Amino acid sequence: MKPLILISNDDGYQAPGIRNLARIACEFGEVVVVAPHINASAKSHSLTVGNPLRAEQIPNDGYTVYAVTGTPADCVKLGVEHLCPRRPDLVLSGINHGSNASINILYSGTMGAALEATTCGYPSIGFSLLSHNENAMWSPAEPYIKQVIEYVLSKGLPDNISLNVNIPILEKIPKLKGMRVCRSAAARWTDSFEKRVDPYGRDYYWLTGKFVCEDMSEDTDQWALANGYISIVPCRPDFTDFSAVQQLQSLNTK
Amino acid sequence: MKPLILISNDDGYQAPGIRNLARIACEFGEVVVVAPHINASAKSHSLTVGNPLRAEQIPNDGYTVYAVTGTPADCVKLGVEHLCPRRPDLVLSGINHGSNASINILYSGTMGAALEATTCGYPSIGFSLLSHNENAMWSPAEPYIKQVIEYVLSKGLPDNISLNVNIPILEKIPKLKGMRVCRSAAARWTDSFEKRVDPYGRDYYWLTGKFVCEDMSEDTDQWALANGYISIVPCRPDFTDFSAVQQLQSLNTK
Repeated sequence: MKPLILISNDDGYQAPGIRNLARIACEFGEVVVVAPHINASAKSHSLTVGNPLRAEQIPNDGYTVYAVTGTPADCVKLGVEHLCPRRPDLVLSGINHGSNASINILYSGTMGAALEATTCGYPSIGFSLLSHNENAMWSPAEPYIKQVIEYVLSKGLPDNISLNVNIPILEKIPKLKGMRVCRSAAARWTDSFEKRVDPYGRDYYWLTGKFVCEDMSEDTDQWALANGYISIVPCRPDFTDFSAVQQLQSLNTK
Repeated sequence: MKPLILISNDDGYQAPGIRNLARIACEFGEVVVVAPHINASAKSHSLTVGNPLRAEQIPNDGYTVYAVTGTPADCVKLGVEHLCPRRPDLVLSGINHGSNASINILYSGTMGAALEATTCGYPSIGFSLLSHNENAMWSPAEPYIKQVIEYVLSKGLPDNISLNVNIPILEKIPKLKGMRVCRSAAARWTDSFEKRVDPYGRDYYWLTGKFVCEDMSEDTDQWALANGYISIVPCRPDFTDFSAVQQLQSLNTK
């Protein structure tokens, strides 16, 4: 039986990125897309509580598509438990339009879906292209996307690991140099909001922000992307800092 | 000048948990609450994009309260950048009504707020009580909550670390034994959705789920909580798995 590949994203089931990823994935197995019915960017790992979900099957050639009234993590849960015809062999998310490297992974619905798959026990990969332009060039990255999918389908991943794969803006580099397995660079967003005043004299705030990264050593995803490589960060959905566990033992009750 | 303490949560500015935490925090400094105007549970680290935020100051005695039309992470960003009178010395989140131990941290808006504070460079602590009952007993935990706040205000935390503090259901244990600094137990939620059929014959799905944890060794938060302790997990907002980075080096382009 062909491998079953479940695909989600956060840009919604109609986004060019997920359609490209589904087309590639069809070369490796049977594809089921379960994705938000509308854009769900920056939804992180959020779940829908208090309202039920609907899943509508969308007519499509070559693979199955469901549009779900929920978050990316909802889509993965609902996909593996109710919508897939059998247990998936691999869960993919993306291709996101915009970076999920470094600290962006925290906010990312694309990586929320990939990490949810991991917590449910499925090998998973999230793909993101740094450009927000839906017509951005991405075909030079296609052989690498295939290489990563093939690697995970044939060799699997360590337990509880999801891959966060980011692709540089290909129009901005002379040549895509290949892939680097790396760590997530420490960074933050500053000046997050632009304050405005409405016609009635009341304040409101638009999310904007500047990305600040001072952690550009050669083992980081930000370095890889700035130097013409695709970055691959193996991620575990566990925030525990083991060295801080040791450092803070004085808080233990004797 | 007294320390400035910013407090957020995900249950909303009116929840008993945040009011209790604000009252305690007032013993340590000047308090500004910036919290969602309505319940924002399971919002994880999500941000509001595409719609602007509003912040309404709510009349209150003893400390300042803003209700924000956004997520917990939005509240922290907006609080530190626009609403606090100066740079906060400490950011608190909670007291959440329900567990954020183990894998629950991934979905938690309470810990989304605490981790957002950390990424912005502020020491932070998230507090959660395992009971969902808003009238649950919690006063035996109060001396420990004060001890943790005092520790962080006086000694600080390692860089980029936030504390995830969970309190057992106090009605269910003979005596609260104290605190344990520990790691997050690996766990997952299964059977996530209950499928129903509406009066028009269409399927819909309610989020439910069973918590499954097979990782109950003595160094975990789940063990601590099951054995009458408050658990403290030091968290770093970085999913990189360093041993998997080594294991997967064969994916590097030569």
